Amino acid sequence: MTQVRKATDGDKPAVWQIIKAVIAGGDTYTFAPDTPMAEMLAFWFSPEKYVYVADADGVILGTYWLKANQPGLGDHVGNGGYMVSPGAKGRGIGKLMAEHSIEEGRRIGYHSIQFNFVVKSNAVAVKLWKSVGFEIIGEIPDAIRHSRDGLTNAYIMYRKL
Amino acid sequence: MTQVRKATDGDKPAVWQIIKAVIAGGDTYTFAPDTPMAEMLAFWFSPEKYVYVADADGVILGTYWLKANQPGLGDHVGNGGYMVSPGAKGRGIGKLMAEHSIEEGRRIGYHSIQFNFVVKSNAVAVKLWKSVGFEIIGEIPDAIRHSRDGLTNAYIMYRKL
Repeated sequence: MTQVRKATDGDKPAVWQIIKAVIAGGDTYTFAPDTPMAEMLAFWFSPEKYVYVADADGVILGTYWLKANQPGLGDHVGNGGYMVSPGAKGRGIGKLMAEHSIEEGRRIGYHSIQFNFVVKSNAVAVKLWKSVGFEIIGEIPDAIRHSRDGLTNAYIMYRKL
Repeated sequence: MTQVRKATDGDKPAVWQIIKAVIAGGDTYTFAPDTPMAEMLAFWFSPEKYVYVADADGVILGTYWLKANQPGLGDHVGNGGYMVSPGAKGRGIGKLMAEHSIEEGRRIGYHSIQFNFVVKSNAVAVKLWKSVGFEIIGEIPDAIRHSRDGLTNAYIMYRKL
């Protein structure tokens, strides 16, 4: 059984394996594919974030974080980043984390969640977010130098909580 | 005569006076109006930023910065933040910095500039950015707890360079 729970320092090696595999694609996140482990883990686990993992009987299949998208007068809008282990695709891990994050966002006190950067050609992600109530509120032209497709747009997505 | 030039450490006290006055309004930036000087200057002058001031014969009337809006595969899109001293409104300082930043953005190598957060009711800013070629590519509902108007939308604006 897969449960989503708060990440601990002990999860960092497994989280890094997922991040490394995901950014290697150069197609869903803007992080350079060769970004070093220390830099990525410092980002993923930065102090202002709430970090979670999808734990299948001790095997980490995905990870996500939530944080306020703006400081001060804008900190009622949450923001998140999500990654699923490439080996665990199609098992509903993304959906499980998406639904968990909506509940967690409410618990933290966010009024809404905004994603600043969902690559337009990442059909799995766009479909997933729409399926849990997010809508597209903007589109950034030529936002990522996609590893296969070159300059590619990204969506901004949003959901009230 | 007002010239826009790179900011130096010696400009920090004057830059802080501008930031302090602007964020006190609670109507154009999400920074809490009581954010401490050290925190704001650390943000405004963070290492990845190019920081500039509008200098009128030694009097600093405005400041702005540019940085990449995303890391790695997204670092061809610039981002910026701009503030004009409340005492210097209506003197064209915003326009001067806007035009300067378009040239600087090209020099740095950005393909475009994206603003993630232009408060919808900040008519002066929206008009200024449209006048120099920016368009609205998205709108975030209830993005800022505006000091007078309560929950207020923000625009995402964009211009190719």
